[in-house]
Amino acid sequence: MRLVGVGVGPGDPELVTVKGVRVLREADLVVVPVMDPSERGRAEATVRAHLDPDAAERISRLVFALDDRGGATAERLSAWEAAADAVAAHLRARGGTVAFATIGDPNIYSTFTYLADAVRERVPGVEVSTVPGITAMQDLAARSGTVLCEGTESLALLPLTAGVEAFERALSGFDSVVAYKGGRQMPALQEVLARHGRLEDAVYGAALGLPDEQVGPAAGAPDNAPYLSTVLVPARRTERGGKL
Amino acid sequence: MRLVGVGVGPGDPELVTVKGVRVLREADLVVVPVMDPSERGRAEATVRAHLDPDAAERISRLVFALDDRGGATAERLSAWEAAADAVAAHLRARGGTVAFATIGDPNIYSTFTYLADAVRERVPGVEVSTVPGITAMQDLAARSGTVLCEGTESLALLPLTAGVEAFERALSGFDSVVAYKGGRQMPALQEVLARHGRLEDAVYGAALGLPDEQVGPAAGAPDNAPYLSTVLVPARRTERGGKL
Repeated sequence: MRLVGVGVGPGDPELVTVKGVRVLREADLVVVPVMDPSERGRAEATVRAHLDPDAAERISRLVFALDDRGGATAERLSAWEAAADAVAAHLRARGGTVAFATIGDPNIYSTFTYLADAVRERVPGVEVSTVPGITAMQDLAARSGTVLCEGTESLALLPLTAGVEAFERALSGFDSVVAYKGGRQMPALQEVLARHGRLEDAVYGAALGLPDEQVGPAAGAPDNAPYLSTVLVPARRTERGGKL
Repeated sequence: MRLVGVGVGPGDPELVTVKGVRVLREADLVVVPVMDPSERGRAEATVRAHLDPDAAERISRLVFALDDRGGATAERLSAWEAAADAVAAHLRARGGTVAFATIGDPNIYSTFTYLADAVRERVPGVEVSTVPGITAMQDLAARSGTVLCEGTESLALLPLTAGVEAFERALSGFDSVVAYKGGRQMPALQEVLARHGRLEDAVYGAALGLPDEQVGPAAGAPDNAPYLSTVLVPARRTERGGKL
């Protein structure tokens, strides 16, 4: 019995790996997280782009909170418990391999971590593995033409849910800084960036690879940005060591 | 005229994206970096796994220093200049699209950054773009079963060529820390990790996805590790907020 977390990238169906596609095709059941059972999430869209239409019956939607604002509320815990129960029930009844498609990478701020822990508790001996996926940070770097790090530069990645103060400390101590989940704290983020003279080079992105994609200067990011938004602050590179 | 940096992942040919495969197949010329012109590099192995055998004539090896130890020496600068000259000559003579296959991601510690700058200087108006790729950090997390970050945890990534002191500062200020290019500084790295009580959880990897792959506890890493080695130090998670 196996549970595999497959990173399917930020939204563009082409940004899943060849291995990810193979594992999704070979799985006995492909679980996709949705916020609402009647809605097709972005992980599901990528899964469907690579599965034969007659394999659609192997896709199962599980309501699974992607949004961890406000910590582990009773409602969210209950959704996670129900998702783990469903996966555990399938594994006990039919064995085989369940693939969980997660946006981005399954080991970087992914709900797969919680699902895997909960399934391990329910199904002793289940083999858990992951297939890496492209993160929003990498996709935004590519789409905006931003070099994340080079030479001896350091990179800090953190969610704004950790607080704007943590972001400001990272800005002082690291060369390049990436903030996830900026959403409603965008004005505070812009204020910190302006104060450090870093607003001009910073890049903002949301809904990467989707029809409503937003990519542009962080200075122009909306005050109430989507929860799954990304801000890249590239290193200052006036004297680039390795440059030809 | 287009130059595309394609991230092909750390070594496993299956860890390239579907988009990466398409761009490599559509390119008029695929450039692969090698340390020595007679040697097949790991980027080339992944490229060849996805191109038809009769497309092999479109693959061109360019001697391109992957190792930036010791800064920009005359020999390395000269290799980069020669590589940029070759790509520029192709674009001027034939136009079309040149794809440069780079291990990992083209915007994260990749020599593509230097090549792109040098080609831009030589071919005004060339369109430069990138396709993201799986990084060694992500592949090692998957292969070792290590969660890189969850919830509000922060992640620091830096090369050991920036100094062991920078690594130690990251260890104090961040939850999870990843060090690249540990190579010859492995004993110093282990000493710092032991002093901070973090050696036990740290994971070491090199040659990921290749026949001589090394994945295991950082405590057991060889004193003289390969240049392209990775050490992951996961966050302390005795009280995991989001855990069920």
